[in-house]
Amino acid sequence: MKTYRKELWFNVPTRRAFINITGEVQRCINDSGIKEGLVLCNAMHITASVFINDDESGLHHDYDVWLEKLAPHEPVSQYRHNVGEDNADAHMKRQIMGREVVVAITDGRLDFGTWERIFYGEFDGRRKKRVLVKIIGE
Amino acid sequence: MKTYRKELWFNVPTRRAFINITGEVQRCINDSGIKEGLVLCNAMHITASVFINDDESGLHHDYDVWLEKLAPHEPVSQYRHNVGEDNADAHMKRQIMGREVVVAITDGRLDFGTWERIFYGEFDGRRKKRVLVKIIGE
Amino acid sequence: MKTYRKELWFNVPTRRAFINITGEVQRCINDSGIKEGLVLCNAMHITASVFINDDESGLHHDYDVWLEKLAPHEPVSQYRHNVGEDNADAHMKRQIMGREVVVAITDGRLDFGTWERIFYGEFDGRRKKRVLVKIIGE
Repeated sequence: MKTYRKELWFNVPTRRAFINITGEVQRCINDSGIKEGLVLCNAMHITASVFINDDESGLHHDYDVWLEKLAPHEPVSQYRHNVGEDNADAHMKRQIMGREVVVAITDGRLDFGTWERIFYGEFDGRRKKRVLVKIIGE
Repeated sequence: MKTYRKELWFNVPTRRAFINITGEVQRCINDSGIKEGLVLCNAMHITASVFINDDESGLHHDYDVWLEKLAPHEPVSQYRHNVGEDNADAHMKRQIMGREVVVAITDGRLDFGTWERIFYGEFDGRRKKRVLVKIIGE
Repeated sequence: MKTYRKELWFNVPTRRAFINITGEVQRCINDSGIKEGLVLCNAMHITASVFINDDESGLHHDYDVWLEKLAPHEPVSQYRHNVGEDNADAHMKRQIMGREVVVAITDGRLDFGTWERIFYGEFDGRRKKRVLVKIIGE
């Protein structure tokens, strides 16, 4: 069994953003030399997500509006977590979108349906944060 | 390490449905010959889910009502994604229910609690769609 | 490839609670002797979660209020599942928080960001329930 590990770093200038990281994850698989196995890709921060969906800007706008409705940022005083912080909503948005994805590797490739893409979902940006890519297989 | 891969195909006649696929996943494990390991089971489409919960029709009705409340289909014009499409809500429902499950395999069986069952959750049906089953172990 | 399996048992005296199980999961990894691999940690019940977030009591209060807003317990009669049961809301809360986490193991340790902690999320307690820890690697 072989394993591979890499951290991907981000510094999003806005509070929220969705960034397509599919190419970077495929490059990790290429570097690992692993042809059959699983890749785990997870946010290492608790106010960010890694998720799989469509690379379509209209949908990303819809997600942003929808998450704000389900877990509003304002008023920040509504959350007990916000003592010296203002990011309680980001901890909730991340639970809806998820911390991690596990993807099959088949013949050295992300084993994906036609429209599947991996995204880093940032909900409390404007600082350096990272994603872990861990691969196991042969 | 051994690996196994199979696609399960669906063509749900309605927009939304929940289908118990536990037996099919167990058959994949049987076919693989793998006794100890992990099985990844994921939707290959971004408007569908694979999740684990109860095989109880009342609960499935409740889920349908609840998801419709959290991410309404109508009016379709409320979503920017819906340009030539009407399935933005399905992309949201799938995030709540999740893309994938990872289940332990112990002694050749899905290592499950009493009521755990695996479901395919369709939120934009009426066409052919598929689920990936990938198994790694020994 | 090595594998390891353990069940963690809980008997939460209240209906809902969040319990930090990070130390117990790390002890499983220590016991397994596995240095590189993946650990799957999942609720074996369909009204409970395993998730990763912050060990901060204000945030846990916020989660509890938020989940109650998204999937209210009362009135129990609003759910068809609640025939001889009153826990339909728990099945929904668990979908938002998730069934399972998969975490990388690197050099014998949970490969975590600074604030990542693993929690058992109970949404229908007052009885014995369990979490599965399954580890694969070398």
